[in-house]
Amino acid sequence: MDSPLRAERSSTEFGRLAPRIVRAIWEWMVRGEAPDAPVSPWTTPAEYYASMPVELPAEGASEEALVHTVQGVLSNSVNPWTRRFLEKLYATPAVVSVLGDLVLGALNASVHVFSASPILTRVEERCVQGLCELFGYSTEADGVSMPGGAASNILAVQTALAHALGSVYRRGGVWALVESLHEKGRRGAGARPVILASAGAHFSVARAALAAGLGADAVVQVPVDAHGRMDVAALERLLREMHADAAHPRGMPLIVWVTCGTTVLGAFDDVAAIAPLCVAHGCWLHADASWGGGAIFAPEGRALMRGIERTDSLTVNPHKLLAVTHQCSFLLVRDRRTLSMRVDDAGYLFHGTPDAPDLATKTLGCGRRGEALKLYLVWLRYGTHGLCAHVQAGLAMARALLAHVEAHAALELGPLAEPLFLQICFRPRGRGSKGTRCAHAQLTGAQRYAVDFAPLPDGEYLRLVVHPATPLETYRAIIDTVAFNIN
Amino acid sequence: MDSPLRAERSSTEFGRLAPRIVRAIWEWMVRGEAPDAPVSPWTTPAEYYASMPVELPAEGASEEALVHTVQGVLSNSVNPWTRRFLEKLYATPAVVSVLGDLVLGALNASVHVFSASPILTRVEERCVQGLCELFGYSTEADGVSMPGGAASNILAVQTALAHALGSVYRRGGVWALVESLHEKGRRGAGARPVILASAGAHFSVARAALAAGLGADAVVQVPVDAHGRMDVAALERLLREMHADAAHPRGMPLIVWVTCGTTVLGAFDDVAAIAPLCVAHGCWLHADASWGGGAIFAPEGRALMRGIERTDSLTVNPHKLLAVTHQCSFLLVRDRRTLSMRVDDAGYLFHGTPDAPDLATKTLGCGRRGEALKLYLVWLRYGTHGLCAHVQAGLAMARALLAHVEAHAALELGPLAEPLFLQICFRPRGRGSKGTRCAHAQLTGAQRYAVDFAPLPDGEYLRLVVHPATPLETYRAIIDTVAFNIN
Repeated sequence: MDSPLRAERSSTEFGRLAPRIVRAIWEWMVRGEAPDAPVSPWTTPAEYYASMPVELPAEGASEEALVHTVQGVLSNSVNPWTRRFLEKLYATPAVVSVLGDLVLGALNASVHVFSASPILTRVEERCVQGLCELFGYSTEADGVSMPGGAASNILAVQTALAHALGSVYRRGGVWALVESLHEKGRRGAGARPVILASAGAHFSVARAALAAGLGADAVVQVPVDAHGRMDVAALERLLREMHADAAHPRGMPLIVWVTCGTTVLGAFDDVAAIAPLCVAHGCWLHADASWGGGAIFAPEGRALMRGIERTDSLTVNPHKLLAVTHQCSFLLVRDRRTLSMRVDDAGYLFHGTPDAPDLATKTLGCGRRGEALKLYLVWLRYGTHGLCAHVQAGLAMARALLAHVEAHAALELGPLAEPLFLQICFRPRGRGSKGTRCAHAQLTGAQRYAVDFAPLPDGEYLRLVVHPATPLETYRAIIDTVAFNIN
Repeated sequence: MDSPLRAERSSTEFGRLAPRIVRAIWEWMVRGEAPDAPVSPWTTPAEYYASMPVELPAEGASEEALVHTVQGVLSNSVNPWTRRFLEKLYATPAVVSVLGDLVLGALNASVHVFSASPILTRVEERCVQGLCELFGYSTEADGVSMPGGAASNILAVQTALAHALGSVYRRGGVWALVESLHEKGRRGAGARPVILASAGAHFSVARAALAAGLGADAVVQVPVDAHGRMDVAALERLLREMHADAAHPRGMPLIVWVTCGTTVLGAFDDVAAIAPLCVAHGCWLHADASWGGGAIFAPEGRALMRGIERTDSLTVNPHKLLAVTHQCSFLLVRDRRTLSMRVDDAGYLFHGTPDAPDLATKTLGCGRRGEALKLYLVWLRYGTHGLCAHVQAGLAMARALLAHVEAHAALELGPLAEPLFLQICFRPRGRGSKGTRCAHAQLTGAQRYAVDFAPLPDGEYLRLVVHPATPLETYRAIIDTVAFNIN
């Protein structure tokens, strides 16, 4: 009895099915591009649950049923091709990246070892090198692609711990660290290694601390200024106090975590001012540039990230600003020697050599999808200059939209990043969070726009994220809708 | 100035480019299916480095150049459609899964929150439910898809720690745990929570221990029997000794980690015998069924995993035995209440409700690709029965191939799993590891077969992994090649 998976030649099956799936996707894209297309085809969870069955059959389905299911999945999903899904820090992807996903599927290679994925290993290394150059890292730098920004950030914290504590950490973890500190008479909260991050940092900082065994409480919040940037004077004071007092209740500074493009305001911490403090206090400097990092392609972005070449590690997610499809994130490190999570020989797996490296030795994982290919294809199609123009188009739009909000007396601006990046928080004037919720319900209820809201010190605001490939008119229409149609 | 990413309608670009990429993939598949196609197009890293340029241009490339690059990536990669890439625990994928990758790219949705990916959230929940049923978990169970088996295993260890230690761990990590134990007078190695795993467990057990802050030394190796299974009597002895002695140098048992399908031999630890020991000693029982778990679709597989419903958590990777493309892994937990890594409110992100859940609250990550869709499409196409037949075809082939090796006087069998699963380790008789290396060099040098080798107690062996969708004749030819052509 043969496996039903080889009932026919794969090329025959692919040759017959692929054009049908391509057609289904194309039709769904065309439908999404129609001016009146809903961004999501239902308004309530109940409506959505009734929309299509999701069953796992005992007997295999016909090809008709399969294509029909794919059509159902598409038409019951959020449609990014409307260019009106603006809820997140990602939006409509580049077409070549979508096709990159198809190529990765057909390759079905894992980039954990060279012998299984030589070209994908090389593409990843080339993308890492290209990104390192843009961020001003030297040829001593290195990096690895990871499944998402949180994964990159988690690996950064583990890398910093392994670097700072050496084999004590790798072999014995936080456990051995505590034991060794206790032997030196250092105990209690004052001895605990902590991460200093701004109040605007992404919640993955807490998860990275948790994942490393430090616990979520190992994150010390540094206040932010009115524009959402880390208060550098407050950071300096904290570092000085914590270092001066071995029993300081907040712990021992190990990592300073700056954000380049915060989730809500799009604020950039002042890396150039913070880097020397980290050197003086012996801290690892990590930049979470998951969102803002893509701006490195433009001089304006490089200005926002002045000093970024002095960080020890940084996370950047091309699946956000650079329109690569999910997921495509990189952790870069300034010193390649720090990037190794190798703890065992795993002789049954790793047979790599210096010119045929096994990339999985750099991470905590094993098998990994070669997602760098998608950045490579996007980079190839648009070039460094094209991606620069992409970023610049977004920044110009953000400035125009800010003026547009300001021109509406009925609207109230929230705090803004200074200089402005790609987010604008606003709400109906004088109605606080309630106005925000009303406007949000109105926008999503009409199924026309997907925009998120976020809590800020004086209540909730709509958060407009400016994605460079979304037409300016779309954003103008959203702003006008909120301004003119307050219930 | 507009972003070059919207120089034309996406549907126009997709409609023009997608058929060309599909064509390139189809041609490469057809080439791979030719009987004499090489599995990899080069033999040395030097040859491969010379094969194609990988450059990041300043100016965007033409569409011709882009298609040409995709063709280059394909033809310079390992070709799984030869069905002769047998080096790993994954092989030729199912065509519908490849197309699932395309659909996921077009959707570009993250399954971290319901509002961004309602159908993909539901597909993931349905696949989790379907897998839980097969593994005999009750309706109290839950699960989440993860980027790879190591990621699932890491999350399992963190989940076990959070469950055992409660908010002490979540808020304070291993750090707070040590501090609290010290306050109770428990210090030194004896107080350290450890993971007991067999010597045949995947190296991700060490990385999971490292990632959790316990350190790689927190893994206590339990001996295996001649067939690669955990020695249950040795485990029981260890658990008893460690529990009886608060200062036992090997630590305090927290997790017992069994493997269902080890990497080299394909051995299944005896879950039914081990589960009661875990209850008696208050240990979390985790099964790494990354490879063997797919066999749950067949009664023979369920027999190999007797007692699996008594584990607290388990990892299964449909991207291995079930021919789903990279990556598709799940962590399942017996009690849904244990699966939460929520540490902060992240009010700017999570607005979920019970009937519209935000899946990212279950993991340490944030954004996640909806990889469950690919398992869903494979399940739909072949049905539970078809996947059962797939597994059974593999098991029947393995038995036939074992007889084939035994029939060759020139070949020497390595240790085998008992009962046999899908791996057969063998080598030229009487030449030890040297014979293995010669045979491996010969197989890969001819570019016809990709087969891995692995160290075992008495030296290295070729490891034949039986993938059910690979023709029996291919495996026979490999065995015959090694038997008849010893240099």
